[in-house]
Amino acid sequence: MGASLKDVAARAGVSVKTVSNVVNGYTYVAPHTREKVEKALAELDYRPNLSARNLRRGRTGVIALALPELDAPYFAELSRFVIDAAAERGWTVLIDQTDGLADRERQVLQGIREQLIDGLIFSPLTVGREELAARTDNTPLVLLGERILDGPTHHVAIDNQRAAREMTEHLISLGHTRIGAIGAQDNPSANTAHLRLAGYRQALEAAGLPYDDRLTPSTRSYHRADGAEVMRRLLALDEPPQAVFCFNDLLALGALRTALSAGLRVPQDVAVAGFDDIEDGRYSTPTLTTISPDKGQIARTAVELLDARIGGTGRAARRAEGDAAEVREVEADYRLIVRESTVGTAGA
Amino acid sequence: MGASLKDVAARAGVSVKTVSNVVNGYTYVAPHTREKVEKALAELDYRPNLSARNLRRGRTGVIALALPELDAPYFAELSRFVIDAAAERGWTVLIDQTDGLADRERQVLQGIREQLIDGLIFSPLTVGREELAARTDNTPLVLLGERILDGPTHHVAIDNQRAAREMTEHLISLGHTRIGAIGAQDNPSANTAHLRLAGYRQALEAAGLPYDDRLTPSTRSYHRADGAEVMRRLLALDEPPQAVFCFNDLLALGALRTALSAGLRVPQDVAVAGFDDIEDGRYSTPTLTTISPDKGQIARTAVELLDARIGGTGRAARRAEGDAAEVREVEADYRLIVRESTVGTAGA
Repeated sequence: MGASLKDVAARAGVSVKTVSNVVNGYTYVAPHTREKVEKALAELDYRPNLSARNLRRGRTGVIALALPELDAPYFAELSRFVIDAAAERGWTVLIDQTDGLADRERQVLQGIREQLIDGLIFSPLTVGREELAARTDNTPLVLLGERILDGPTHHVAIDNQRAAREMTEHLISLGHTRIGAIGAQDNPSANTAHLRLAGYRQALEAAGLPYDDRLTPSTRSYHRADGAEVMRRLLALDEPPQAVFCFNDLLALGALRTALSAGLRVPQDVAVAGFDDIEDGRYSTPTLTTISPDKGQIARTAVELLDARIGGTGRAARRAEGDAAEVREVEADYRLIVRESTVGTAGA
Repeated sequence: MGASLKDVAARAGVSVKTVSNVVNGYTYVAPHTREKVEKALAELDYRPNLSARNLRRGRTGVIALALPELDAPYFAELSRFVIDAAAERGWTVLIDQTDGLADRERQVLQGIREQLIDGLIFSPLTVGREELAARTDNTPLVLLGERILDGPTHHVAIDNQRAAREMTEHLISLGHTRIGAIGAQDNPSANTAHLRLAGYRQALEAAGLPYDDRLTPSTRSYHRADGAEVMRRLLALDEPPQAVFCFNDLLALGALRTALSAGLRVPQDVAVAGFDDIEDGRYSTPTLTTISPDKGQIARTAVELLDARIGGTGRAARRAEGDAAEVREVEADYRLIVRESTVGTAGA
């Protein structure tokens, strides 16, 4: 049984109304009183009745997380972080899978279930600036993933181009001069692919290495099967690459499998690198060199920005509300993680 | 723009009311009329306005899928199938992550958000018969995963004990006599673990092999890290196992990594088998021998049973409604899939 507002009020020696004011984040409570109430809240482990509170405010307590694929490990891992960050605000997360289809993504933007949700965190694959500008639904929105230039929307992303450049520089630093890339896409709206390819090309150019488009074939999607297939084509070239930078870890795991099945040693015969730092790549043999976006930071930031847009659910939101008016683009951190697939093991 | 009931009525030459009766699955429409209407519905690609219909029926159009871990590939893959099957009925799936914690699972059963959802598909890890019997919430419920004996609830599962026995028999058939198991659990409510261990023991007994509990250490959870750690302990035994049956693929991928890191060849020095058939195991080196539950069938069956319990959303439900009264336990199919981690490659 949880403590009631009345229990807290008795313990703090104040009125129920005062406790309610503190819990709801109103500002006109004297600091000394607020302190007493917060101490009592903590001691009694008070949990607000969120559904009742949401009801009063005309809210559902539910936010949606729309993403391309729930069964792609990057998105599954990111979802866990979003669910955890949302739970801290008492929010339930409804997950919506778009399959990266333009139609489904437009539906998400147009608020097919606006009555149901208080806010939306959306990781688009194909929709861009135009679709965002045309949006008429006014459910609070925060975007994840690629930067959509001049977009009217809060946004959280890592610098994909810089990260891709760093990974390519890592491969160049190992002495490779013929470096392939798996993950280029023909679709002009495929922002991730274009940014990562741009970073790859920048690194080649800075090192004085030629760009050879036979080494960057397009992929239809970003699954293991695509990586495996494109790697077969790269290995069949007259001059196959010495290293391959894959634009996500699933592509890299597919490419790795193709290389090992062909009897090649990784990294001695061909080095393989990925992007995303999914758990799979920490247990593969060899383990996978990758770019690790700070997924926890991305999720927490997105939830905070959304909370500010929605207008807050109490104390936490009050801290953020100064940010609610302007559009914010937050750049999340990432790290280059070097593992066996590019540098081998101590013994190899 | 979608076709309206009026468009369909005009095309079929019937009244709007008649079209509505067909769409809503009422039975008192003459077969000939129904046929004309269904033809017109198909030709015009009629899509019902589900939110309006749900509203009239006091429904939200949302079902919840509660599962232990969204970022465990088995559950992520299963979620995709559930989302797809639910979408065919116009349902949105809200995903709820319990982390397999008893408290969270009890909350799910007690209907923390009963106002929000029409039904619940629940894959429990720890709650059992008692918690189910004590349930007072009456949101329609279908259980996934382990059989909870004599439970009052629709249920979809594979025969875990038989599947585990088959996998162990496969390892025995390869000539192994000292076979370890990774995934036993001390927790008495861990039904999956107990059923799979029981199947393993049955196979040993049937083959006249002794049961040695040093070969079946307990694991805290079913992640790659647990498999890696328990495998280290098994390999450190005076007589390490010749083969290891892991109770899920993540444990097996962890065990595989430990074996390969220790310089062992898989399967020549130690064979490794898993359970779940997640995509990771199709691309690992070596690829993973596993039990493949029919996840699509599990998801579709669960959604159908739930639809029948909820009372239907039209034609599909009417077919199933005869089943709604009695509790059903549906056994889903599975296959043993033999890959490199137990039998090697043609060339190995």
